[in-house]
Amino acid sequence: MKPVEIKREIIRVEDGISEPVEDVIVTEYPITVKINGEEFVTMVCTPEYIEDMVIGYLASEGIIRHYDEIKDMWVQEKDGYIHVKTDKPNPFYQQFQNKRYITSCCGGSRQGFVFINDKLTAKKMTEKTVILTPEDCLTLMKKLQQSAVTFQNTGGVHNAALCTQNDIFVSRMDIGRHNALDKIYGYCLKNGIPVDDKIIAFSGRISSEILLKVAKIGCEVVLSKSAPTQLALELADELGITTVGFIRHRSLNIYTHPQRIQLEKE
Amino acid sequence: MKPVEIKREIIRVEDGISEPVEDVIVTEYPITVKINGEEFVTMVCTPEYIEDMVIGYLASEGIIRHYDEIKDMWVQEKDGYIHVKTDKPNPFYQQFQNKRYITSCCGGSRQGFVFINDKLTAKKMTEKTVILTPEDCLTLMKKLQQSAVTFQNTGGVHNAALCTQNDIFVSRMDIGRHNALDKIYGYCLKNGIPVDDKIIAFSGRISSEILLKVAKIGCEVVLSKSAPTQLALELADELGITTVGFIRHRSLNIYTHPQRIQLEKE
Repeated sequence: MKPVEIKREIIRVEDGISEPVEDVIVTEYPITVKINGEEFVTMVCTPEYIEDMVIGYLASEGIIRHYDEIKDMWVQEKDGYIHVKTDKPNPFYQQFQNKRYITSCCGGSRQGFVFINDKLTAKKMTEKTVILTPEDCLTLMKKLQQSAVTFQNTGGVHNAALCTQNDIFVSRMDIGRHNALDKIYGYCLKNGIPVDDKIIAFSGRISSEILLKVAKIGCEVVLSKSAPTQLALELADELGITTVGFIRHRSLNIYTHPQRIQLEKE
Repeated sequence: MKPVEIKREIIRVEDGISEPVEDVIVTEYPITVKINGEEFVTMVCTPEYIEDMVIGYLASEGIIRHYDEIKDMWVQEKDGYIHVKTDKPNPFYQQFQNKRYITSCCGGSRQGFVFINDKLTAKKMTEKTVILTPEDCLTLMKKLQQSAVTFQNTGGVHNAALCTQNDIFVSRMDIGRHNALDKIYGYCLKNGIPVDDKIIAFSGRISSEILLKVAKIGCEVVLSKSAPTQLALELADELGITTVGFIRHRSLNIYTHPQRIQLEKE
């Protein structure tokens, strides 16, 4: 695969003084997914764990429902294609890709879902398998940041991790916010990793898209050092997901379903 | 229009002590563009300057080439639609939307363009209309941050500004990186604002998508406090755009076309 970072000559200016220096830049690589020979989507991504990313993406769009529905998969690197062979791409889901979900109920209702496929593939979390203390949240976010080598080198990527209560289980990075989560989802599907006892930690903002990815992967809790959006919180309310944001230094905000965060009695 | 921020009860935890507080959260709003009655695209955005955003988006996709090609436009707020009436949606461009651009040249060549429409609508900047000092870059980035009221309230949005050499001309924010730039593009098209003497300042990373938006708007220089990607820099090389990143405190990096940045002689 292509490199995820490259070196480049740039001009660095500091206090008005300029000098040429060598800098490390994150790469960005377009890859087009072909399903049974037909062009399906082009993703622009960090070129590592491409296969996992595509598995995760196809599952999150509902095109496949299990990993074994993929019969073959190979990357044609030179031309930037990834080929997927499947005997049953779900035509029901395919027709709905990027089509808007229109709620049939009255105007006053919540309208969290934007796209039909999201409504169909996001899972509702009704259990309380995961219990975290605020200290656990701080520790996991710290470990996510420490694992983010490419970010530290380039400042150009987002990091996502699937975590146990105390540690990072697997972490992935990508220049595309959602790609990092698709890489984790694909990894779990391919390797049959159970996720219901795990947590997603994410370096970026929690938009509706990110919250939906968490619901599709099937985790009960999402942690972020950044802010959530209102649409993401409405979806989290509805889907039973605990959202913790602004995890910085010694503090954090619990936005939704606080039952999974063990607070100290005063 | 809907509010861009809302208040919400959250649980704040600081040093292990939790208390309910009222927090300000940025909203996220899906809007579906219908062109002559046909559903075209659904955008998820910060609900202000929606019309400008759609004008900018349609122009940047090549669906319209001039503002006066839009004959009518109205927002159907309750259902989240924006209707566009045009007597000539360009069918040539419409068929290429999200279709990948395949370079016909040999494998070793640069392949900066990912999508056909980008190749067709990005402008090449051959002039040197704008000259900035490093001090100008620092000042403009500082003014962008000061103008970012919603970001300061919520931490949830990206900010973009069209600037003159010394000041912000117009600034827009959005939860979607590219939407903020589409809002600026639409504003310029609608009001016939000349852009070739202006600069884009942006709060986020400069991905290929952001660089292409700058080229479509038609500015020679883009400033950011964050990192660029390699694909963005290849496009900037090719399109003649000056890219300045990591503008922080007293320093900055010049990545491409440094001829527009006036460096001090030592």
